Amino acid sequence: MIKAALSVLLVLVTVSSTFGKYIPKTGRRIPQTLSRGWGDQLIWAQTYEEALYWARSRNKPLMVLFHLEDCPHSQALRKVFSDDNELQKTLDEDFIILNLVYETTDKHLSPDGQYVPRIIFVDPTMTVRADITGRYANRMYAYEPSDLKLLISNMQKAKKLLKSEL
Amino acid sequence: MIKAALSVLLVLVTVSSTFGKYIPKTGRRIPQTLSRGWGDQLIWAQTYEEALYWARSRNKPLMVLFHLEDCPHSQALRKVFSDDNELQKTLDEDFIILNLVYETTDKHLSPDGQYVPRIIFVDPTMTVRADITGRYANRMYAYEPSDLKLLISNMQKAKKLLKSEL
Repeated sequence: MIKAALSVLLVLVTVSSTFGKYIPKTGRRIPQTLSRGWGDQLIWAQTYEEALYWARSRNKPLMVLFHLEDCPHSQALRKVFSDDNELQKTLDEDFIILNLVYETTDKHLSPDGQYVPRIIFVDPTMTVRADITGRYANRMYAYEPSDLKLLISNMQKAKKLLKSEL
Repeated sequence: MIKAALSVLLVLVTVSSTFGKYIPKTGRRIPQTLSRGWGDQLIWAQTYEEALYWARSRNKPLMVLFHLEDCPHSQALRKVFSDDNELQKTLDEDFIILNLVYETTDKHLSPDGQYVPRIIFVDPTMTVRADITGRYANRMYAYEPSDLKLLISNMQKAKKLLKSEL
């Protein structure tokens, strides 16, 4: 019932907020989300600089997720990633998260090359956790959909923060 | 009629895609958009690196818009900015666009300081157009809601590209 009411509200908001507004020649587009389908209920950082700032100031580990919207491996991982409530809850409560479709200039984020999907953890001390790896020797930070349990266990590792020497 | 059908479709998509999925303790959130309310129908770059790449490869000028979600001046400008169909159409067709709530490391994007709202144009030759300014001597890249016509005329200036020396 609440769900239905929410949906009606959403329609009203959508219709009223788009009424008379600019519509592209090619037709109305679905607004881009920062989540890009990896967890619509999570709060995503927009840029690496912003994510690092949040990680330091909130003393939480950062997960950086490199992907491409038209890559079938990324799409398959995204499906199980966004459907897993345990993973989503842990990310929401204990992590700073950033998903990127474009590489940064920081070489530390590609310890063994630039490929997608690729998941890199960064400690709030700003140290890239190159020690937290997946199952594949040639692409150490790649995960397949069947590796979700490993990813969750790696998240637990990332939650054990390195001690700052400051 | 089409609008109504679209709305119903949106409800169905929304309900079906969120059914059984993770909901934060604090309640369901509205997914963050890349537009952040500055033009939901436009295609926004996520990061400065991505925006520069698009500007170069598509030979279009870049508009970088610095703002803060809880800044009343940003909110006031956003309202007229997102409501103006001429501005939205020009941005959609002729510009690469990026809105940021966090400063980049590139000092060229803050020629006279870091403040919001602030709009900086960048030529596809990667040159920051420090010559395209607003009305205020102490904050040269700030715009008030009443400055929308000036902003549109500055967009026309930015569209006259600098010649690459290559």
